[in-house]
Amino acid sequence: MENLENSSDSKETVSPLNNSGFKLNSTISHRDGKNMGFVLVHAGAGYHSESKAKEYKHVCKRACQKAVDRLRAGGLALEAVTAALVELEDSPFTNAGTGSNLNLSGEVECDASIMDGKSLNYGAVGALSGIKNPVLVSRRLLSETQKGKLSAGRIPPCFLVGKGAEQWAISHGIPACPTEKMTTKFSLSGYKRNKRKMELAEQVETKRRIQSCGHENDFGCLEPVEGEENNSACLDTVGAVVVDWEGNVAAAVSSGGLAMKHPGRVGQAAHYGCGCWAENARDVSLYSTAVSTSGSGEHLIRTMLARECSTAMQAENAHQALLEAMQNKFISSPFLAGEDCVLGGVIVLRCCTCGEAQRSEDIQALLVEFLWSHTTESMCVGYMSAQDSKARTHISRLPPGAVAGQSLAIEGGVCRLGTASD
Amino acid sequence: MENLENSSDSKETVSPLNNSGFKLNSTISHRDGKNMGFVLVHAGAGYHSESKAKEYKHVCKRACQKAVDRLRAGGLALEAVTAALVELEDSPFTNAGTGSNLNLSGEVECDASIMDGKSLNYGAVGALSGIKNPVLVSRRLLSETQKGKLSAGRIPPCFLVGKGAEQWAISHGIPACPTEKMTTKFSLSGYKRNKRKMELAEQVETKRRIQSCGHENDFGCLEPVEGEENNSACLDTVGAVVVDWEGNVAAAVSSGGLAMKHPGRVGQAAHYGCGCWAENARDVSLYSTAVSTSGSGEHLIRTMLARECSTAMQAENAHQALLEAMQNKFISSPFLAGEDCVLGGVIVLRCCTCGEAQRSEDIQALLVEFLWSHTTESMCVGYMSAQDSKARTHISRLPPGAVAGQSLAIEGGVCRLGTASD
Repeated sequence: MENLENSSDSKETVSPLNNSGFKLNSTISHRDGKNMGFVLVHAGAGYHSESKAKEYKHVCKRACQKAVDRLRAGGLALEAVTAALVELEDSPFTNAGTGSNLNLSGEVECDASIMDGKSLNYGAVGALSGIKNPVLVSRRLLSETQKGKLSAGRIPPCFLVGKGAEQWAISHGIPACPTEKMTTKFSLSGYKRNKRKMELAEQVETKRRIQSCGHENDFGCLEPVEGEENNSACLDTVGAVVVDWEGNVAAAVSSGGLAMKHPGRVGQAAHYGCGCWAENARDVSLYSTAVSTSGSGEHLIRTMLARECSTAMQAENAHQALLEAMQNKFISSPFLAGEDCVLGGVIVLRCCTCGEAQRSEDIQALLVEFLWSHTTESMCVGYMSAQDSKARTHISRLPPGAVAGQSLAIEGGVCRLGTASD
Repeated sequence: MENLENSSDSKETVSPLNNSGFKLNSTISHRDGKNMGFVLVHAGAGYHSESKAKEYKHVCKRACQKAVDRLRAGGLALEAVTAALVELEDSPFTNAGTGSNLNLSGEVECDASIMDGKSLNYGAVGALSGIKNPVLVSRRLLSETQKGKLSAGRIPPCFLVGKGAEQWAISHGIPACPTEKMTTKFSLSGYKRNKRKMELAEQVETKRRIQSCGHENDFGCLEPVEGEENNSACLDTVGAVVVDWEGNVAAAVSSGGLAMKHPGRVGQAAHYGCGCWAENARDVSLYSTAVSTSGSGEHLIRTMLARECSTAMQAENAHQALLEAMQNKFISSPFLAGEDCVLGGVIVLRCCTCGEAQRSEDIQALLVEFLWSHTTESMCVGYMSAQDSKARTHISRLPPGAVAGQSLAIEGGVCRLGTASD
């Protein structure tokens, strides 16, 4: 298995990788179903400084490993994707769970959601404080939905927010976590820096709105102070997509939201169709697809990017389909007509049963295509099959000279799971 | 203008009204643009007792009148739809704003959203307490989005929840309203009744989940106590769709949510693509469409019903398209595979420029098709053109013998705005 890297500036010279561009350099040979499956994670689309690249890659590697551990233990995609997310949330370097951006009041408020491609069930939490792993609450909401109605025939909720979400989580056995424990020295210093700059900006431009993209860097954070390289507080959303040995897909996403957001603001990570999407193929002519997004929440909501990418991935050429979706449904979306700086990224996985597998009755062989694309300066991803000894990680960057918010990078790879070696 | 009524049991004998079934009995003759436009409202899909029918119709009538007043004063669709919603929220009989269902803790928590087909901007609030008209907060969020970025380049929120949403509203000049003032004797008696029944149900079926639909009535409320006819607390979401004299569409929705919901539960009324949708035609070959939904929030979220209906309405035959959308994308949706009782309703409006108008340079003539469909026992609607002297109202009911949650009713009409009388 090998990933192919190719960045293209969508506004100038698009050099799409077509299907033949996805080389199938190695195939996974295990026929033990429990050792089959694939995970792709991201630690945010935003700006990842070279000096911090190691940290981001490291957490992606660990998240992949956690997912693969679950797959190897016979866990399905839903369990594996949850395990990856917990690891990503627990890293103080990512903007999710511990280390989340602080809001205007200096508090942690998290969004997360999860979707199971097999049952098409979904769970989400928004503006949640006081819980270490928001993804576990969304996962629990999903599980409770599957159990059927509540007492007196009440329909169980799939989306809870704020204090109510926190109380629900605690009453369902998920332990409370003091907000202070989720605040890191990085998120706190980022908050103080941003607050100072906001106050300054508000003095200078009391009534003037910043109109152009050039005045800000990714995600509406002011430029980092010279000499301060850590801008992890500017990074966004983490997420993962998984396919298991049964061919089920699942997707999840988690975010601390925009730095200095208004309390109560909910971004795409808690929005159905916007933060993540997973849908098993309903017949053999279709692909199973899973998507997780990252970036500027309001842009990702209004373009419903996760679901749009999932729909697009039913086209023949995965790379071309994603390229077109990112260009037409995101950068040039009519829903963002007034925006000249559209910031986001996606990880996408699609899979189908290989021809060989149709002869085998015990274990399916799956062809997995995995891609990522972003309009932000960079995006950190990791991926691993259940048969790999370790995850591969990569920081994808826009090509030199490409303008963030107007151009895109797209890369990906293919792997075949469960067949005998070629 | 006349509405045509035709109910069909989708599971048994479907007798679709095709395009020729939409009779064009009267056309609106005003050429004064300011006197042109059309509004369709609903006061919830659920169960409307005969004895309370008058109240529901009355509030629909007033809501239509408020929208038309705005249109006649030169207001655009967005203003008119907001005016209709405020009236619907203020009625103590509807489950929105004042008179909303109370949650498990006996509190009012409202969801609302609004979408402008012209700009495609959107605003939403979820689990909002302490504000009399939640739609005004979603409307204000939409307006603020249109103003561009906040200080220091921060992206303005389009979705706020809980305490943060309340604080934002107050800081933007929307007055606070004590929750007690939004609680009515009906909502309080409904709460007490439901609480008693829930406690009873929990004693009886401590660990057993209710599996079938037959044990409950619409929206997960227990059956009303014999002799108590007011079950307004069981009704859901209100909404409106409007087209103005420029041909712009707008849609809005507002809800107190399910009775006895968990605090923090957010339903479809605050969910992008699920509660409402409005999209002006981007070229002359397309229709402008506006949709508002009502019913069981979780079902409407998972099927993204507002956007699905909007997309479906680009087909040639509006009635057939809506019938198929309600059957295939709602009742039989793969996203609700485990549900045998799928409760909801929609109001839909689509319009296009008439042939005649293309010759006129000053004022467009618009052909407006308006429909409603529901799987609930009944749905109360009202509609009015800016040239009408008063609104028409109607309580649509499932045909006798049809099973709520498995069958549907669909009705609609057509009117032509702005051309000389035939």
